[in-house]
Amino acid sequence: MIVRFSEVDSMGIVWHGNYAKYFEDGREAFGKAHGFSYLDVYANKHLTPLVKLDFKYKTPLEYGDSAIIETRYIDHDAAKIHFEYTIYNKKNNAIAATGESIQVFLNLKRELVLVCPDFFIDWKKKMGIFMNKE
Amino acid sequence: MIVRFSEVDSMGIVWHGNYAKYFEDGREAFGKAHGFSYLDVYANKHLTPLVKLDFKYKTPLEYGDSAIIETRYIDHDAAKIHFEYTIYNKKNNAIAATGESIQVFLNLKRELVLVCPDFFIDWKKKMGIFMNKE
Amino acid sequence: MIVRFSEVDSMGIVWHGNYAKYFEDGREAFGKAHGFSYLDVYANKHLTPLVKLDFKYKTPLEYGDSAIIETRYIDHDAAKIHFEYTIYNKKNNAIAATGESIQVFLNLKRELVLVCPDFFIDWKKKMGIFMNKE
Amino acid sequence: MIVRFSEVDSMGIVWHGNYAKYFEDGREAFGKAHGFSYLDVYANKHLTPLVKLDFKYKTPLEYGDSAIIETRYIDHDAAKIHFEYTIYNKKNNAIAATGESIQVFLNLKRELVLVCPDFFIDWKKKMGIFMNKE
Repeated sequence: MIVRFSEVDSMGIVWHGNYAKYFEDGREAFGKAHGFSYLDVYANKHLTPLVKLDFKYKTPLEYGDSAIIETRYIDHDAAKIHFEYTIYNKKNNAIAATGESIQVFLNLKRELVLVCPDFFIDWKKKMGIFMNKE
Repeated sequence: MIVRFSEVDSMGIVWHGNYAKYFEDGREAFGKAHGFSYLDVYANKHLTPLVKLDFKYKTPLEYGDSAIIETRYIDHDAAKIHFEYTIYNKKNNAIAATGESIQVFLNLKRELVLVCPDFFIDWKKKMGIFMNKE
Repeated sequence: MIVRFSEVDSMGIVWHGNYAKYFEDGREAFGKAHGFSYLDVYANKHLTPLVKLDFKYKTPLEYGDSAIIETRYIDHDAAKIHFEYTIYNKKNNAIAATGESIQVFLNLKRELVLVCPDFFIDWKKKMGIFMNKE
Repeated sequence: MIVRFSEVDSMGIVWHGNYAKYFEDGREAFGKAHGFSYLDVYANKHLTPLVKLDFKYKTPLEYGDSAIIETRYIDHDAAKIHFEYTIYNKKNNAIAATGESIQVFLNLKRELVLVCPDFFIDWKKKMGIFMNKE
């Protein structure tokens, strides 16, 4: 991911709110790599809005910097999707920011789904996430 | 409209792309004042995407500046919505930017509608726009 | 604050990242009301980047909704600026989101300032924040 | 360039204002390929704000679409930078949008520079742009 001119504020550093896009980029890349995207979720008749989002800003990203976004899936039994993120600045390997997000499942009537949807359980199995628990 | 910190770039002036939001603010305010909003359009089973958008940047807006957006409706017989905009900087009345936008009508199947929809003709009549032509 | 069309995502609700703008609106309004703005900080030769930002999303805001942002200053002895936020949806008084932010002080060489700058102490005094402690 | 979830509006298509970012991506990529970036311009003590920006929207980009941005430099004798853009949707090669931008040169005092700066003339020579004129 390369920092866009439009993402930088008048201090010459990435405006803090833009890290929400970078975390989303991380989720997208994770979804692409592991077969779990917004479009898959929607095809399975669910929405997954965020209920929690945290940022810790460590060192600023500047215009022209390249960054690497590391996205880790944290498993829970409950019907939620938990990711942790670390953004590294490529030029010096410094951590630019860390954070986490939690998403829940809604059905297409926008009602909260309290039990893990089948397609999510299938995905976990495919990922081998249940293995260690059995 | 007050310039947000997040709308200013590393030159300390509003990033040019953010004027698209200001023009949208202008359309919203116009719609609210004259009973012609996105939600009205949608309730009447149409969408009105932009097909053309132009900006001319005159003098920069800075963080903390207040601006006034003047939005003028330009009537056409064809099935389109044409607005012209002028953004003034309140602190010195200088013109910050001018521009225009053209929107067309789609039905909910997203097909182009070539004839003015009834609700739009009704709105024009209510606005007295046809008066001068009869 | 009125939700902009451009702030709403394909689910028809405000995209979660846009709440960073709303919290900034809250800080701005607080700064304006209490004489403590980015521009004051800058005039006093400091920058105040965020080091922490948290969101909890409760009920979605939709296009056209009006929201009220409540911004509370939380005092600390340390050289940091701590705000808590609650965003209410005007149409039903429901809480849309809560959150908090922590900012630190940098001097214009971008070095971390560990002791409360004089202008910040002066501002606290003016606000009567030290009263209860003496 | 891949369409981000956050760039899509409630109609499920890229919000028109986000094309300003895509054009900027095009300028960046052009600058990187041809040694003419914002940072080069700044190192040569100039700023190059936009004075004109036009969009024509042809077919919508949707979430998950990949797009190719073609950026063409149009030469003028005057001290300005003129680009034309075409954005193609990779999935069907359809043109999503076209447009153009014009930038001018300011010195670091933010005064308009009416004569082509030397570094820009040098860049044109390196690009062979003057050849056909001699």
